[in-house]
Amino acid sequence: MKVGLIGLGKMGFNLGQNLLEHEHEVVAYDVNAAAVQELEAKGAAGAGSLAELTGKLESPRILWIMVPHTFVDSVISELTPLLSEGDIIIEAGNSHYKESIRRHDELSAHGIYFMDAGTSGGMEGARNGACYMIGGDEEAWAAVEPVFRDTAVENGYLYAGKSGSGHFLKMVHNGIEYGMMAAIGEGFEVLEKSGYDFDFEQVARVWNNGSVVRSWLMELIERAFSKDAKLDEIKGIMHSSGEGRWTLETAFDLQAATPVIAMALLMRYRSLETDTFTGKVVAALRNEFGGHAVEAK
Amino acid sequence: MKVGLIGLGKMGFNLGQNLLEHEHEVVAYDVNAAAVQELEAKGAAGAGSLAELTGKLESPRILWIMVPHTFVDSVISELTPLLSEGDIIIEAGNSHYKESIRRHDELSAHGIYFMDAGTSGGMEGARNGACYMIGGDEEAWAAVEPVFRDTAVENGYLYAGKSGSGHFLKMVHNGIEYGMMAAIGEGFEVLEKSGYDFDFEQVARVWNNGSVVRSWLMELIERAFSKDAKLDEIKGIMHSSGEGRWTLETAFDLQAATPVIAMALLMRYRSLETDTFTGKVVAALRNEFGGHAVEAK
Repeated sequence: MKVGLIGLGKMGFNLGQNLLEHEHEVVAYDVNAAAVQELEAKGAAGAGSLAELTGKLESPRILWIMVPHTFVDSVISELTPLLSEGDIIIEAGNSHYKESIRRHDELSAHGIYFMDAGTSGGMEGARNGACYMIGGDEEAWAAVEPVFRDTAVENGYLYAGKSGSGHFLKMVHNGIEYGMMAAIGEGFEVLEKSGYDFDFEQVARVWNNGSVVRSWLMELIERAFSKDAKLDEIKGIMHSSGEGRWTLETAFDLQAATPVIAMALLMRYRSLETDTFTGKVVAALRNEFGGHAVEAK
Repeated sequence: MKVGLIGLGKMGFNLGQNLLEHEHEVVAYDVNAAAVQELEAKGAAGAGSLAELTGKLESPRILWIMVPHTFVDSVISELTPLLSEGDIIIEAGNSHYKESIRRHDELSAHGIYFMDAGTSGGMEGARNGACYMIGGDEEAWAAVEPVFRDTAVENGYLYAGKSGSGHFLKMVHNGIEYGMMAAIGEGFEVLEKSGYDFDFEQVARVWNNGSVVRSWLMELIERAFSKDAKLDEIKGIMHSSGEGRWTLETAFDLQAATPVIAMALLMRYRSLETDTFTGKVVAALRNEFGGHAVEAK
């Protein structure tokens, strides 16, 4: 099939190569012309603008957008007047599912299909086989399924239903990821404080072979320990990029009790500060009622 | 090697078969004579008592105890006078690591080695390849390593160090398991309340292929959803059998902040009650200060 690929960053460039290897035609555009040339060298057709890109595709066009989520709306608004009825936009970044529903409804008014695709598996996945959760109109799904099938790992894609369902699943996937990662982190913290002289790489290795907690995340931490046995080189600061928070906001909307995922997110926020105002307040109160010592600044 | 196997329950019987298939000699004892006969039929030598069992082994003997943790002390106290200096006891059940250290020290006084082995992977693991974390004296480890190597999955055993370290690792493994399971549960609860018509088996399936949360636990829940699409047949009551609690008690001893594992355990306790006293107190307070409605019994 012929796919217009917009965005050749870490994910998009790898996906472009993946598409080409599966004998799809790729017309590629990025604001960074060097990335376009690089993918041209691998067999893609390049475009210097969105207008040139759409001009090189025949209707019904398939446009795959793989840009940071803050640029999705501007790309879509520039793209919309260049498209025709029946064209299909796939938005495969990490957007909020409510934004995807809004975009779907706005594009529907122009007769343009909009598919929201959650993508998991990182750069390696984009290159060699990703995991996709896809939402959007069923008639458009039939047209684009081959592109997902060919660039996913085996059994690694799911048409999840109506608009928003793809990004909803990806959001919850990330919420689960927060909880799993925190549980793994806390477990290793207990080991680290235990007084036993555990070799953490070996612990992760044995847990990856036959145990109940075997998982890709445990494999990743085994790899990390193999490079830095006690993780001495890094700080325990845990940034976050939105989807854990979205999962919780959604859980609040639905009155779904998700304390483990909530705690995982709150501990990420906590990790950003070396001292907290909560701590000062509690220390001050203990001092006021019990004369307990406080530590001066 | 020749192994005295004590306890032919779900785990021990499968382990016995696993040992026999790897051409170890097994002398088996269980209070249930039928289980002994069954393993005899598969090639083991049977024993009708611990005295008969130890009589059929030459020093240094290897004794593998696989009984419910409440019976471990009585088995050991009956066994001790039957053993000689240099004999090795392997205790491969789910004991608290502090109990294992105590048993190790008591047996040391008799010149008997005591290895604490945490075993993961369930009955399938015991039968076809388990995951072991083993603590105890290093000189005894050299003698028993072949038995662990042969009955584990590839790379599925670790000599973790001094006495208690095996059961300590198994305890923390289970603590991580609590957190991971709760995160998976909460994620599916958000999906279930979402209003989207997700096919949970298919969601678990796609998450098991290429996603970041792919894991054995996600495979197990995919299997569960394949049998009961919405888990309508079961209640959301989450029992626990001790190791999550031990992980937390240990975290308290070590002042290790493990709120995600703690929340996973507390939510298990919460799930055992259909109504809570906490709830009554909070409802009564809202009523007292704000006149908010309470629901009568």
